[in-house]
Amino acid sequence: MRSIRIALAQINPIVGDLKYNLSKIVDYIKKAEKGDADIVCFPELSLTGYPPEDLLLKPQFVEDNLSALKKVVEETKGIDCVAIVGFVDAEDDIFNAAAVIYNGELKGVYRKIFLPNYGVFDEERYFQAGKAPNIFVINGINVGINICEDIWYPDGPGLIQALNGADILINISSSPYHAGKREFRKTMLSTRASDYAVFLAYVNLVGGQDELVFDGGSMVFDSDGKLIAQAKIFEEDLLILDLNLEAVLRKRLHDPRRRKEKLKVAEIQKIFVCDKKEGKKRGENSFKLAGVDDVPIEEEIFKALVTGTRDYVRKNGFEKVLIGLSGGIDSSLVAAIAVEALGSENVIGVIMPSQFTSKSSIEDAEALARNLGIRTIKIGISRIFDVYLDELRDVFKDKPWDATEENIQARIRGNILMALSNKFGYLVLTTGNKSEMSVGYATLYGDMAGGFAVIKDVFKTMVYKIARYVNDKAGREIIPKRVFEKPPSAELREGQKDEDDLPPYSILDPILKAYIEDDKSFHEIVAEGYDEELVKRVIRMVDKNEYKRRQAPPGIKITPRAFGKDRRLPITNRYVPWS
Amino acid sequence: MRSIRIALAQINPIVGDLKYNLSKIVDYIKKAEKGDADIVCFPELSLTGYPPEDLLLKPQFVEDNLSALKKVVEETKGIDCVAIVGFVDAEDDIFNAAAVIYNGELKGVYRKIFLPNYGVFDEERYFQAGKAPNIFVINGINVGINICEDIWYPDGPGLIQALNGADILINISSSPYHAGKREFRKTMLSTRASDYAVFLAYVNLVGGQDELVFDGGSMVFDSDGKLIAQAKIFEEDLLILDLNLEAVLRKRLHDPRRRKEKLKVAEIQKIFVCDKKEGKKRGENSFKLAGVDDVPIEEEIFKALVTGTRDYVRKNGFEKVLIGLSGGIDSSLVAAIAVEALGSENVIGVIMPSQFTSKSSIEDAEALARNLGIRTIKIGISRIFDVYLDELRDVFKDKPWDATEENIQARIRGNILMALSNKFGYLVLTTGNKSEMSVGYATLYGDMAGGFAVIKDVFKTMVYKIARYVNDKAGREIIPKRVFEKPPSAELREGQKDEDDLPPYSILDPILKAYIEDDKSFHEIVAEGYDEELVKRVIRMVDKNEYKRRQAPPGIKITPRAFGKDRRLPITNRYVPWS
Repeated sequence: MRSIRIALAQINPIVGDLKYNLSKIVDYIKKAEKGDADIVCFPELSLTGYPPEDLLLKPQFVEDNLSALKKVVEETKGIDCVAIVGFVDAEDDIFNAAAVIYNGELKGVYRKIFLPNYGVFDEERYFQAGKAPNIFVINGINVGINICEDIWYPDGPGLIQALNGADILINISSSPYHAGKREFRKTMLSTRASDYAVFLAYVNLVGGQDELVFDGGSMVFDSDGKLIAQAKIFEEDLLILDLNLEAVLRKRLHDPRRRKEKLKVAEIQKIFVCDKKEGKKRGENSFKLAGVDDVPIEEEIFKALVTGTRDYVRKNGFEKVLIGLSGGIDSSLVAAIAVEALGSENVIGVIMPSQFTSKSSIEDAEALARNLGIRTIKIGISRIFDVYLDELRDVFKDKPWDATEENIQARIRGNILMALSNKFGYLVLTTGNKSEMSVGYATLYGDMAGGFAVIKDVFKTMVYKIARYVNDKAGREIIPKRVFEKPPSAELREGQKDEDDLPPYSILDPILKAYIEDDKSFHEIVAEGYDEELVKRVIRMVDKNEYKRRQAPPGIKITPRAFGKDRRLPITNRYVPWS
Repeated sequence: MRSIRIALAQINPIVGDLKYNLSKIVDYIKKAEKGDADIVCFPELSLTGYPPEDLLLKPQFVEDNLSALKKVVEETKGIDCVAIVGFVDAEDDIFNAAAVIYNGELKGVYRKIFLPNYGVFDEERYFQAGKAPNIFVINGINVGINICEDIWYPDGPGLIQALNGADILINISSSPYHAGKREFRKTMLSTRASDYAVFLAYVNLVGGQDELVFDGGSMVFDSDGKLIAQAKIFEEDLLILDLNLEAVLRKRLHDPRRRKEKLKVAEIQKIFVCDKKEGKKRGENSFKLAGVDDVPIEEEIFKALVTGTRDYVRKNGFEKVLIGLSGGIDSSLVAAIAVEALGSENVIGVIMPSQFTSKSSIEDAEALARNLGIRTIKIGISRIFDVYLDELRDVFKDKPWDATEENIQARIRGNILMALSNKFGYLVLTTGNKSEMSVGYATLYGDMAGGFAVIKDVFKTMVYKIARYVNDKAGREIIPKRVFEKPPSAELREGQKDEDDLPPYSILDPILKAYIEDDKSFHEIVAEGYDEELVKRVIRMVDKNEYKRRQAPPGIKITPRAFGKDRRLPITNRYVPWS
């Protein structure tokens, strides 16, 4: 029986930490061996972490990565399991590559052919493209290896490998999460497996790296495109399963789209890796489904935010975080995420009331802290604010109160949070959401001051939904009821409400999504039924606040188009989309 | 006589301002016509401004750019001068292109073949590559048009055009400045002209755009590679000159490297543009050299900084700027640059002494302001600082004074500057240099707070040189003598000196250059004779302060590798280059 036991090692490496990554890879190889796997595969560039960005332009980094690979190879001596490991290959130039390793030897290398250079990706900046969609022969089975982007093209290397006899394709990926992508990816991979009439094993990275979070959820499909195994999401996992590949030839012979002539590819080689091992009994296809397909979107995003936060904080060597608690929904949600990510003992709420802070806001912040079991620090800003006003009186003369005085308050809070951060070595998490980041409804160096912006890619309307999920999940009130009910306010002047300055979020958010994420034109958005003047106002606010976003801390991408390297607009930009 | 009168329109467009750019282009076409030119050529993407970045992903922007081109075409009706204009071409996808326009008609389009995707460039993110190195026949002369990057490859489209009979190559560019690039570019272009045995006209963009400044300095070379004309640098210019192209065929026939067989390019076409005009007398080659080749490096960088500052401020709609004056060399130089860029009436110095500010610092700041003729505002920070300390006393308990208290002061100053900015609508210029930015010797949200970081790519040792140039140029003391002589200090604690925390800049700067700009390895830097522990310390400081730089305002690139989009390192990064 043509069958194989495959292990998908869905790991969470750390960018640049070659020692850590190599020892994690060796650990998982040994675990796979214990599970008697024939092949264990690791995500794209798992040896360096993904994405290594301009570290790739340092020749020494590339060399150190090769030394680390050599150590992995040495460690496999005597291990009867083929390891497929993502690393940076170098031959006069560099390649995004997969090493095929067996029993102390590097048997071959596959080099990524399609290099993504859109959205958050810059791979054309670094890599040469591979040219050879080789097949690796492992225990008599034809294994086509390819890397991430390669599988997204219907006529990519996977097709060539399949038409040249591959029984199974292994795609090693580092595919960043955004809401909705998991379903899209699953559908696409299922179609590839059935189009190509091969088994398809897809191993994805897991964990957070700056703006990106990788969701894992590695999958295996049979040659009919049926999902037969899926790993956990947002967690490391090792999925070991048996695949009965007899179905592949049967499918091929019966395939109504069976091609009589193979694509001719001069460069393709069959590279021998190892011999069939006798006496190993493989069963029929294993079915192992982590049951992550019906996860509601709020839960999925919450997990993404928790993972991104935990990994940013921990991988940067921090233990504790500070969050300014205003009693509003944003800071409440960020605190809940932080507690889930780091534990309540590592989250400190800072309450900084002013003369404009309502009693109920302080109460709500305190109730939240109690519900989460986190420590709070309370420092008033009124006295400091008064001295600022006093010092500025002469130069401000008779100018009326405006956003200036509001920003001074926000910046006093920023200074206090940063002072606590500096003194105690805690990281400040900021609490601004995507609606605010979009229109610049935030104070640069004020509430935007901090190391990591947890919900900067979450629209306000979604903030409420996830907050509700937090309470539902806990089965009790974590975020106080009143926080959901009161109208959002920055409380920087008497009786201020967000809706004094902004349209209601239920109208603002869809306009922002259309403009920012979908790049729809002014006219298209108006045609969707929004008021023309309102759309103009929103677009103007988005465009003129690019300078603020450029100085914002990084945050977790959860939409198809986040601020940051996903959306690269000039600051100096006089484009007016309705003239 | 095969001769032509060519005009190089070295213009300064504004990114996104299609109306402004189109009317500027039409103006220059008319000026060229008045000068009786046969051809006028404009820089790469001059219709949209360069680089338009993700504006290119908006279908409406691309369409609006095509409408603007149409207007340019219409405006050329009755004008007997061919215009070559950089724009975004669209046909199912988009291309970085040059339009060839004559007498109200679009005669043809050249599409850029080599797309840069390194350093500050992301062109693979946006454009499809052109495939056709066509030749345009203008008044019986074969003109090979290509775009920027195309000319940097020895076997690029220019070679094919030359071997297929081009008399002259016109390369339209938007080539960002860095110190030393002008000489390199000139040498390269001279070699291309003589290698290809053609005249070569190179028209470059001028002006500032966010982090980039374009230096202009457009050039024309004869077929021996001799520079026969050069435009001004850092200014708009219109260079009109006659070229006697008889030399080209003579050179070709005599060329020792004469190729008997032309490269065969299936796609190449000769596109007819317009007929030879009778009765126009052209002379021999004009020689017009702006004399910008011997400009000392300090002057060149100063001009780059002035241009970048002026354009950032003006193109973003600001009139006046604020600068925190400490009496140190950095803020003094920034003030001098701002005055040159914007006029003394538009620069306001803000002096914000604390208990640690020496009397001489205040005197030096005031003397500088007097010398520059700028207004000053003085606001002390001691009272505010004391209230902060008071409010933080309980939570800080007995923790000793450390960087926290220093940062609080810097952030008070940041808050005051931003309050003045908010109240009066002035832009804050920050004053940190590249040495500080590299090692994180700056306070995030403190002295790093502001809209534009004028000298963030200038090492401290170069700051002194440029400052000296400022005084030399004025022929009098602008920056007080004492500012050059005193040891640099942040004055955030009693008796503080930079050298208490950092190695001397004369040692620090070359290490930083080696590590940051040249990506040299730890071992290579040590091998250059620097102390091992010191190099480790410097590298550690550079690496761990990536988070600060990510939140820094943009500033002007003047070195081969600036911070910003030129150098994309992860924040979460545990790579240790000596383990």
